[in-house]
Amino acid sequence: MDVMARIEKSLVTAVALADRPGCPPRLSAAMQAAVFPKGARVRPRLCHAVASACGDDEPAATDAAGSAIELLHCASLVHDDLPCFDNAALRRGRPSVHAAFGEPLAVLAGDALIVLAFQTLAKSRCSPLRLAQLIATIGDAVGVPHGISAGQAWECEPQIDLSRYHRSKTGALFAAATVSGAAAAGHENPEAWRTLGETIGEAYQVADDIRDAASDEEEAGKPVGQDAAHGRPNAVLIYGLTGAVSYLHDLVAQGIRTMPPCAHAHELRMLMEQEAKRLVPRRLAASAA
Amino acid sequence: MDVMARIEKSLVTAVALADRPGCPPRLSAAMQAAVFPKGARVRPRLCHAVASACGDDEPAATDAAGSAIELLHCASLVHDDLPCFDNAALRRGRPSVHAAFGEPLAVLAGDALIVLAFQTLAKSRCSPLRLAQLIATIGDAVGVPHGISAGQAWECEPQIDLSRYHRSKTGALFAAATVSGAAAAGHENPEAWRTLGETIGEAYQVADDIRDAASDEEEAGKPVGQDAAHGRPNAVLIYGLTGAVSYLHDLVAQGIRTMPPCAHAHELRMLMEQEAKRLVPRRLAASAA
Repeated sequence: MDVMARIEKSLVTAVALADRPGCPPRLSAAMQAAVFPKGARVRPRLCHAVASACGDDEPAATDAAGSAIELLHCASLVHDDLPCFDNAALRRGRPSVHAAFGEPLAVLAGDALIVLAFQTLAKSRCSPLRLAQLIATIGDAVGVPHGISAGQAWECEPQIDLSRYHRSKTGALFAAATVSGAAAAGHENPEAWRTLGETIGEAYQVADDIRDAASDEEEAGKPVGQDAAHGRPNAVLIYGLTGAVSYLHDLVAQGIRTMPPCAHAHELRMLMEQEAKRLVPRRLAASAA
Repeated sequence: MDVMARIEKSLVTAVALADRPGCPPRLSAAMQAAVFPKGARVRPRLCHAVASACGDDEPAATDAAGSAIELLHCASLVHDDLPCFDNAALRRGRPSVHAAFGEPLAVLAGDALIVLAFQTLAKSRCSPLRLAQLIATIGDAVGVPHGISAGQAWECEPQIDLSRYHRSKTGALFAAATVSGAAAAGHENPEAWRTLGETIGEAYQVADDIRDAASDEEEAGKPVGQDAAHGRPNAVLIYGLTGAVSYLHDLVAQGIRTMPPCAHAHELRMLMEQEAKRLVPRRLAASAA
């Protein structure tokens, strides 16, 4: 089974827990809408890629880690879209969860998806020692002091710490993807994989900046030009388009250099380089080349 | 250390994770406000009581389980109070979290408290096998298909299943308290403790009905007469006051009869009987006796 099929299968199995008799049907439907149809699944793919590079000797642990990370990402999008935050009526071109199901179910679906991430890990039958590592790693990536919730909460402070904001809101879950991929595969020092995740997270942020500054709405799949309009920092505004594209490639190269030794380092390197190319819209890659 | 001091100490340690450098200070303050000053801590006391009856041979596991359960209870109160649910400006006589910190921080504090419950378990250094059981048990009590989120979501269905609503919204976390108390102490069959928790949860619901129907606002600590005003089912309206009080004692007695054999069964029985008395306001206990 290819990795995308494997990721989708694990997610379908995880979310099916909400389809058991006795679960309120609209909650179940709201959770389905938050997770499917599939997004790019960037974080679980990264988790699987690292697990695979480390031998992937306990596939159930990798599947659970990848699913948990994606469920938490989806939960954060549902809560981010709420009227009290971004008040977004659309997500991936479809109605956001609160637009489709109302605000109470959007709050509850987000809550239930957060919990489902940990239920999925606990039910995975992965070996107990790895489970403890995975729950600590993934929990830290979404909680306090430096996970997604903390990152998002910087928006509620009188003075925002921009670097912490990005590192917590975006970087933390990417870092959890690489660290937990290594932990799921029994790597002796999963934390050694953290820098790779953080760097890829930053590259992803730069790619987002590039799409916002330099692609059109159809290519980006969402409104563009938002950073300039809101005076937010954007790598293209700072380095120019060619500069931002090469900064992105530098970040990926730098991430690759930090990779600890592992069984299948070559395949992982190739994959990272492919991903870096995929991140930049084709037309822009051509014009910046 | 007495059990209440032990519970508070564990909660203080757990919530201190939000006080680490780099955590947004207002998020940290909102989480503190959600957990302190102390409530009755009914669920962690139940968890500790069962653990103690089973020998409490791994106190760190019991502390973590009790804290996780209380953190999840507090998270559910924060989200329940939100404008899109109960829109409650007060909780325990003080401003609710969204009234004090705004809606975005109330959503995020609830999210972060849910995650903190699992971080607390993962960081507890309890033995990995018990950890896996605790996370599965406690996760199921708050997630889908039958945990708190699912219970609350019945309010969003066109037809509410009242029995499931109460069992999921209130009973599930009580059941998790007894089962995880037993699991934390290494009982060979923690699930055998579930009926005790469910029965105590139901007794607690009846006590709530009694306070709503028959005490005054000062005694109950919140507005009374709400069930009659909203046409909600209430044990006093069904059985009368004396009938409801004896139903409550019957439930506790029934729960006690389901207790599996354990090292300190006698102490636990005594404690349960004391609790049952404590649950009914003194004046009413005297008048119903």
